[in-house]
Amino acid sequence: MESIKSVHIEKNTAILLIHCPDQQGILAAVTEFLNRNKGNIIYLDQHVDREEKLFYMRVEWELDVFAIPREKIAEYFETLVASRFHITFWLHFSDKPPRMAVFVSKLSHCLFDILARYTAGEWDVEIPLIISNHEKLAPVAQQFGIDFEHVPITKENKAEQEQKELQLLKDYKIDFVVLARYMQVLSDDFVKHYPNKIINIHHSFLPAFAGAKPYHAAHARGVKIIGATSHYVTPELDAGPIIAQDVARISHIDTVSSLMRKGRDLEKIILSEAVYKHLERKILVYNNRTVVFN
Amino acid sequence: MESIKSVHIEKNTAILLIHCPDQQGILAAVTEFLNRNKGNIIYLDQHVDREEKLFYMRVEWELDVFAIPREKIAEYFETLVASRFHITFWLHFSDKPPRMAVFVSKLSHCLFDILARYTAGEWDVEIPLIISNHEKLAPVAQQFGIDFEHVPITKENKAEQEQKELQLLKDYKIDFVVLARYMQVLSDDFVKHYPNKIINIHHSFLPAFAGAKPYHAAHARGVKIIGATSHYVTPELDAGPIIAQDVARISHIDTVSSLMRKGRDLEKIILSEAVYKHLERKILVYNNRTVVFN
Amino acid sequence: MESIKSVHIEKNTAILLIHCPDQQGILAAVTEFLNRNKGNIIYLDQHVDREEKLFYMRVEWELDVFAIPREKIAEYFETLVASRFHITFWLHFSDKPPRMAVFVSKLSHCLFDILARYTAGEWDVEIPLIISNHEKLAPVAQQFGIDFEHVPITKENKAEQEQKELQLLKDYKIDFVVLARYMQVLSDDFVKHYPNKIINIHHSFLPAFAGAKPYHAAHARGVKIIGATSHYVTPELDAGPIIAQDVARISHIDTVSSLMRKGRDLEKIILSEAVYKHLERKILVYNNRTVVFN
Amino acid sequence: MESIKSVHIEKNTAILLIHCPDQQGILAAVTEFLNRNKGNIIYLDQHVDREEKLFYMRVEWELDVFAIPREKIAEYFETLVASRFHITFWLHFSDKPPRMAVFVSKLSHCLFDILARYTAGEWDVEIPLIISNHEKLAPVAQQFGIDFEHVPITKENKAEQEQKELQLLKDYKIDFVVLARYMQVLSDDFVKHYPNKIINIHHSFLPAFAGAKPYHAAHARGVKIIGATSHYVTPELDAGPIIAQDVARISHIDTVSSLMRKGRDLEKIILSEAVYKHLERKILVYNNRTVVFN
Repeated sequence: MESIKSVHIEKNTAILLIHCPDQQGILAAVTEFLNRNKGNIIYLDQHVDREEKLFYMRVEWELDVFAIPREKIAEYFETLVASRFHITFWLHFSDKPPRMAVFVSKLSHCLFDILARYTAGEWDVEIPLIISNHEKLAPVAQQFGIDFEHVPITKENKAEQEQKELQLLKDYKIDFVVLARYMQVLSDDFVKHYPNKIINIHHSFLPAFAGAKPYHAAHARGVKIIGATSHYVTPELDAGPIIAQDVARISHIDTVSSLMRKGRDLEKIILSEAVYKHLERKILVYNNRTVVFN
Repeated sequence: MESIKSVHIEKNTAILLIHCPDQQGILAAVTEFLNRNKGNIIYLDQHVDREEKLFYMRVEWELDVFAIPREKIAEYFETLVASRFHITFWLHFSDKPPRMAVFVSKLSHCLFDILARYTAGEWDVEIPLIISNHEKLAPVAQQFGIDFEHVPITKENKAEQEQKELQLLKDYKIDFVVLARYMQVLSDDFVKHYPNKIINIHHSFLPAFAGAKPYHAAHARGVKIIGATSHYVTPELDAGPIIAQDVARISHIDTVSSLMRKGRDLEKIILSEAVYKHLERKILVYNNRTVVFN
Repeated sequence: MESIKSVHIEKNTAILLIHCPDQQGILAAVTEFLNRNKGNIIYLDQHVDREEKLFYMRVEWELDVFAIPREKIAEYFETLVASRFHITFWLHFSDKPPRMAVFVSKLSHCLFDILARYTAGEWDVEIPLIISNHEKLAPVAQQFGIDFEHVPITKENKAEQEQKELQLLKDYKIDFVVLARYMQVLSDDFVKHYPNKIINIHHSFLPAFAGAKPYHAAHARGVKIIGATSHYVTPELDAGPIIAQDVARISHIDTVSSLMRKGRDLEKIILSEAVYKHLERKILVYNNRTVVFN
Repeated sequence: MESIKSVHIEKNTAILLIHCPDQQGILAAVTEFLNRNKGNIIYLDQHVDREEKLFYMRVEWELDVFAIPREKIAEYFETLVASRFHITFWLHFSDKPPRMAVFVSKLSHCLFDILARYTAGEWDVEIPLIISNHEKLAPVAQQFGIDFEHVPITKENKAEQEQKELQLLKDYKIDFVVLARYMQVLSDDFVKHYPNKIINIHHSFLPAFAGAKPYHAAHARGVKIIGATSHYVTPELDAGPIIAQDVARISHIDTVSSLMRKGRDLEKIILSEAVYKHLERKILVYNNRTVVFN
């Protein structure tokens, strides 16, 4: 298919995500490290959690005239800065888009939203694979030219089928997984393969209405606002670190089906927002909570 | 104290709140009853719950040339309309403002918001009494010229003190009670004296974080939105019919104390919104949920 | 392409939209007309503008056992009710989905949102035609199996090309037009062919920032909230009756390009919301304003 | 009157607000200056406007063991850091609360909101003076024990009366002024005495509906969302740097008077939010726009 992507301006930058115990001088040490080596900072945001005495930082700089070769940056940073401050860090390069797989069941709205952004070139990502426990959305995958794997799950075959899925993710060199209204609970074992690398959308304002049928529960309780929550998946159901939430006002006029209709818009927008933040390397997870930089 | 109240235009209207099983012809029957007797309708809103097959309605009409004398309206409506359709109804007259008591503890923001609106004449209400389990806010009551009763509550004296409170409410001819961040749980017995006539503000987005210290719980869970909920009090804690909810976006930067600061604004606005809707007779309760007319 | 549409439950209902000078007895007359002829009302909403003394109503009822044949309903209603109350009304039948054309330029997000909902069967509509002044989005039309007509517009050929577009709309039996970020101003003549039948999305919170480059203007002004507005098109630019608006919070951190990114989500959601309300026949236009029923 | 203020924990900190052309090394230079002199940073936020190449920063640190005496900090910072980077800066000390005057006319809701927060000890501020062109709110001032000056303004006496007001502000050692629905336009001369030190609330979503009667204008235009805007006053009416904005959804049901009712809540909350940010020294103004730190 002909591309409708906008001409993409290649960025040649490195991104460093950091957390460590808060101490005097960390910020100065990191910025000096970059300045001294001619790394022009184009984004810096930091956050200190005064209660937990933790320091978080995201810094992005241009590599064009940076004095340290890219394959040596991690080593130099470890030796010269990180070891001194007990820093845990992740280093990413903007010219290597991550590879993402989408898991779906029967509902199409989140999948379409993801594929529309992908097709339009909104995101720096590759999406080579869609996995589903149903065949219903195969035509959508085909329409967008993406491989579709049908992996039906039953109580009996779950362990085995998850192995098949893990193998597919490996074969396709997938970096992270997006559950776009995938109606299966992943096993602990599966989740542990992708720590903070599986993004789910739950169709309620967590922690309210965790679990099944949240719109029915919201309607029965008579709430005046509904919500949707995107979060990283952890072994405990609907209890992982929250990335983004959004809400919509409702009233006594709403039925369960109108809640579903209004909820779909929340779900797709807030799932895509989480994917965007993940792709931009703007999320740090610590202690089952997220720091999401602007 | 000199009054800052705006000149108040006296409305001479009657308000009818109705619910009943949904059937053909109810709306026509009610509007005919009013039209035939020269009741000029100035507001009509109705709602049909198609799932539960219930009909809800609020109608307000001018009494000036209404053919039925006000003391006979209930009887005539019962005989001519209500009995036919198994209607449950409440009849109110706009020229008789209800009397409200405010219960407080140590936090002043909701109380100030209520008293500011009262002083400015925003609401059709009388507020003759403030009850508190602490003495701290006595100066605020005094400042606004309202009686303040200090009724300290301990585990041991609770039953007895609640009797004292009930007697005060009776003496002051109180129609309904507003718990403006009152930090005591009312006993079932107390609640049963004022069914759907005690309005509470809970400082979370219910049903999330019911019970004590919701801002601490919200911070610990790492939510990205906080909320506040006003509801009628029922014997089950924080589980009564929800009247209004509001939310505010937060981020990893927020501390428990900044959540409290942001939450105060939500709490006072959404409690006062509930009081306003209650005063306007725009709330119908059924099945632990509310219909809140516009 | 195989369909992913949910099984659609055919509704057999009629919808009546009404406005007229407010008088006693209209509501009773309309509901009696339906009740007497066995029209089971499944939705009724009415609004009285007390200042302008205007009455608005939307009523939907089942046709299954309705005593008046569908082709006679308009005539009977006119004779028996409308003429008496000087009612202007529109009668629609739910089993005849309207036909919609989408006009686009180069931006795909609104188009994808519309086509995703269409493909999923969210809307009761036919979309046989996409018209564009650019060729860029032809692949999207093809992907979804919809005819695409490239009608480039220049200052010189505008009148002639609009004639061509009008002919296309006629050939395709189009009932209403959606401008999904179509970057051409329609002529007065064109607009007059489709009164209250052309829906536009403007990428600002109207009336702020009407005209070109609203995100640049919003950034320059330093606003803290941006918005999007869907409205019916009238000859005066960005001044037609507003259907729906939504907003997003921004801060000093945002650039023009991040405003555009955040704005896209507002635009697509609020344009689709307007299309939904239009399809549901829930919009009444009067005096350049809309009544949008719930 | 007895105090209801919470016990206030005295902070002994300094706050530095900075802007300058963006260059490498600023952030490192500032943090080194503080670290080297034992200034424990408890808050740091910075922002780089990449388009305008401007650097903004707010840093707050503890003075307890800071090596430079407080009266020398400005001089040392100028010499050692600011001059090198062409920095413009403001230095504040947390133990010296600013003095604020409130200007009002007849509407009380913003004034009550401010005085409630003041009385409860929410803000680090002194409010010794209320000025009004009407006598109506004198009882409110008296109720809260604050001096009230009645300065009626007519076309003829405006220049003279503003001189009187300026003298009052001088006598009361006022640092900044809050216009709490003050219905007079200040002269250019007056405004120039308090650059970025007069905070106004405008009852619309600026730049929409600047000038008089914005709720009437919003109703006439048929918008679906209304707003309120707090901003610093500049000589051009309603065109100063925006500090905060908030919005509320409305519908065709709303009348001008219900817009006013809903708007009052927006106005008071968003004006108080601006005052809070101003008191926290979290606002930097540049180029008629604000940087508002979190």
